[in-house]
Amino acid sequence: MEWRIATYASHSALQILKGAKDEGFGTIAFGKERVKPLYTKYFPVADEFLVGEYPEEELLEKGAIVIPHGSFVAHLGIEKVESMKVPYYGNKAVLRWESDRELERKWLEKAKLKLPKVYDDPDEIDKPVIVKFHGAKGGKGYFLAKDSKDFWEKARRIGIKSKESLKEIQIQEYIIGVPVYPHYFYSKLNEELELMSIDRRYETNVDGIGRILAKDQFELSLENSYVVVGNFPIVLRESLLMEVIEMGERVIRAAKGLIGGLWGPFCLETILTDELEFVVFEISARIVAGTNPFIEGSPYTWIRYNKPVSTGRRIAMEIKQAIEEDSIDEILT
Amino acid sequence: MEWRIATYASHSALQILKGAKDEGFGTIAFGKERVKPLYTKYFPVADEFLVGEYPEEELLEKGAIVIPHGSFVAHLGIEKVESMKVPYYGNKAVLRWESDRELERKWLEKAKLKLPKVYDDPDEIDKPVIVKFHGAKGGKGYFLAKDSKDFWEKARRIGIKSKESLKEIQIQEYIIGVPVYPHYFYSKLNEELELMSIDRRYETNVDGIGRILAKDQFELSLENSYVVVGNFPIVLRESLLMEVIEMGERVIRAAKGLIGGLWGPFCLETILTDELEFVVFEISARIVAGTNPFIEGSPYTWIRYNKPVSTGRRIAMEIKQAIEEDSIDEILT
Amino acid sequence: MEWRIATYASHSALQILKGAKDEGFGTIAFGKERVKPLYTKYFPVADEFLVGEYPEEELLEKGAIVIPHGSFVAHLGIEKVESMKVPYYGNKAVLRWESDRELERKWLEKAKLKLPKVYDDPDEIDKPVIVKFHGAKGGKGYFLAKDSKDFWEKARRIGIKSKESLKEIQIQEYIIGVPVYPHYFYSKLNEELELMSIDRRYETNVDGIGRILAKDQFELSLENSYVVVGNFPIVLRESLLMEVIEMGERVIRAAKGLIGGLWGPFCLETILTDELEFVVFEISARIVAGTNPFIEGSPYTWIRYNKPVSTGRRIAMEIKQAIEEDSIDEILT
Repeated sequence: MEWRIATYASHSALQILKGAKDEGFGTIAFGKERVKPLYTKYFPVADEFLVGEYPEEELLEKGAIVIPHGSFVAHLGIEKVESMKVPYYGNKAVLRWESDRELERKWLEKAKLKLPKVYDDPDEIDKPVIVKFHGAKGGKGYFLAKDSKDFWEKARRIGIKSKESLKEIQIQEYIIGVPVYPHYFYSKLNEELELMSIDRRYETNVDGIGRILAKDQFELSLENSYVVVGNFPIVLRESLLMEVIEMGERVIRAAKGLIGGLWGPFCLETILTDELEFVVFEISARIVAGTNPFIEGSPYTWIRYNKPVSTGRRIAMEIKQAIEEDSIDEILT
Repeated sequence: MEWRIATYASHSALQILKGAKDEGFGTIAFGKERVKPLYTKYFPVADEFLVGEYPEEELLEKGAIVIPHGSFVAHLGIEKVESMKVPYYGNKAVLRWESDRELERKWLEKAKLKLPKVYDDPDEIDKPVIVKFHGAKGGKGYFLAKDSKDFWEKARRIGIKSKESLKEIQIQEYIIGVPVYPHYFYSKLNEELELMSIDRRYETNVDGIGRILAKDQFELSLENSYVVVGNFPIVLRESLLMEVIEMGERVIRAAKGLIGGLWGPFCLETILTDELEFVVFEISARIVAGTNPFIEGSPYTWIRYNKPVSTGRRIAMEIKQAIEEDSIDEILT
Repeated sequence: MEWRIATYASHSALQILKGAKDEGFGTIAFGKERVKPLYTKYFPVADEFLVGEYPEEELLEKGAIVIPHGSFVAHLGIEKVESMKVPYYGNKAVLRWESDRELERKWLEKAKLKLPKVYDDPDEIDKPVIVKFHGAKGGKGYFLAKDSKDFWEKARRIGIKSKESLKEIQIQEYIIGVPVYPHYFYSKLNEELELMSIDRRYETNVDGIGRILAKDQFELSLENSYVVVGNFPIVLRESLLMEVIEMGERVIRAAKGLIGGLWGPFCLETILTDELEFVVFEISARIVAGTNPFIEGSPYTWIRYNKPVSTGRRIAMEIKQAIEEDSIDEILT
């Protein structure tokens, strides 16, 4: 049977399916009926659209390989993804490590990345922090505090009065700098890391508030939120690229020891300070939406490939190579 | 006689004429003598350059179809455009609906778009507003107010002392969020809507003030202005694209009933809030300069066409198809 | 012997070497051992990598033409560059004019560009100024002042107490607006100026502070810094392009009289005000990193060339033409 490439109809599915078609694969999108026209009419990248959150039987019948992305995992939940029978591109074991803050930290520390400090005890706050609420949608209600006293004042206002009620929050060092998100691809077949592209997220409302004068911000009693709504393509200062690549290599190496490997696309979410230090907040161990500006290739993939290669297409290239080399089982879980 | 594609030498003329040449058309630019070298020497997209604000006789003789854009309409004025004898791509009837704030509102409300509230009576202000001056260049003097009291204080300072002097201003709900401008194309021939690209405007000085610390903003007594000077290419969160398309479809449907149709390129100028709600401020019922980053195609047109298709080129493709199908009269007015 | 194109392994070397290969040249990168994999493995653009800050003998032996960029000049120092024996693309005489603030000013004034006012005497400050420290890395410690009194207050705090200690600083008019960086190429062979692309720099932390609410900025006692870490591709309002080109033409003309000419790539670093006035802060008389988003061509070069032409490739095209026309000596110094 011929393999077909399938993904959940959201996030970066246009890119994934376009890339699959460019490499000659048949394609399947599955998801909400409402978005069917997006993938079949407005952008005809899906040869077939299956309505359903995860139509396992049909996907199995049709020889689908599922390409995971953030919306698919969020939508289905980690446990369901782990027990999926449809072949899955990537290492499912990574899911736990990425979703558990402590495991993630262990991984990134083993990769010798610089991470923001986390405070378990508010009385130890000794530099500016951002206070995050677990499960807060879009970062609403997140607040900054400059020291312990400031923390307690603000925390009390929202009903946190003692250390007992701290379970709901995370207190993290606030890093001053600019967001930079490098996108990588690790080829398990070739044992090679590639730098695919770099983006800067577009977030509402924090990317709007700077357009409001400080005096007006005060009058309007603005609050900040961090809902990602899009992405800007950027390039990075070339003298920083070697470090970006070394960071990626260390993540791959650490994953080999801890998790049995990470392969395919991934992204490090960083703040770059004015000391030119990358502070890493999170790893996304799969394709990120920040690759979407580069559907026709990025400055970096044009250099390497001299043809239009998106991260979505790169995935399809890897699967094609695996089929040709008869090693498809190596890259699916 | 062979049709040639012509436009006023400004705004998005480079894109329009490049697109026309890509589709095999002869091209004409007309406008100020000063910019002739831009279109004939530095960027040789115009086969011919006619000096003059609208050289009707020559354009008629040469078989020109005029592609309108914002600068052309602003420059010539709606009345002159309406009485033009040179064939015009698009529906001229749209011009009135777009330039009259009440008609525009009627149209967008019929399309069930979310619009910012407008206050006729300052005493009814019940949320933050932006106060705009009719005809203010680049939004200079625009101010924000948080309630009626704040409005009157600021209004008095600039000489507005009673409700009688309110004619010069518009009081509009101030939407907190980020600007997102999706660009559409509606093919009258194929009866199909296409999502072409998305940009985020670059405005001076509001896109500069966020680079100034709040404390310095106070000391420098900064005032804001909103002069558009360029555009950033962006992509939008994929889960929002279906809604963007549905908004466009409703605009097209509403225009059929009200105006006899809208076809060709158009743009919705929106603020996207942290509730993921698009609030629409304006419609531009023709090509916008926000399409200029995508002269070699956008991520979205690459998916659909798999070749470089800008909005300018898409227009030329439509005209070419009309000529081939002998239905050119359907798309000109 | 065949010419080969060489550059220092940083800044825009990926672009330069990719462009050289596109035009059929052999390529050499030289620099720090650590970055060798970047140019030979991750992005295989260098046929050869020479370890060393400037391996003159080897470069001479291998028939190298060195393409200068900002990191090369900063790294080696102007005097060493001036006495280089390896052929150098461009006019070395420009180096002095660009690095000496007074000569640079003379040049830009002769080109009739609008420059920010510079104050020798703090007591003459009559509008907002930015106070810069010679040699301050990344603009740290730079401060704004609104008048003489404000200047002295802030200057005293950092130990500047009298006019005698002013040597370390430059007091420059602070221009309110947005940064716009047009990139040019002047072909000495064709005697033609080309507009290649336009970027907006990405700077830490000033491009991050606008994402922090004014109230939080105060609490965190933020300071600003201007370390360039990347670039955004942008396009400029089309009605401003003719002026951008005229500015470039005047710079070229002024350089002919003063310096014996400027050729190859250069960039004007401007702030664009809400009066649509370009205020020029600096000229970079060689390729800038702002061209890096455009490795596969910019909207502007696609219009002109209808094939992917980066600034790096444009340099290689010029050298190739010179070799073919047997005039290579004209463009090397």
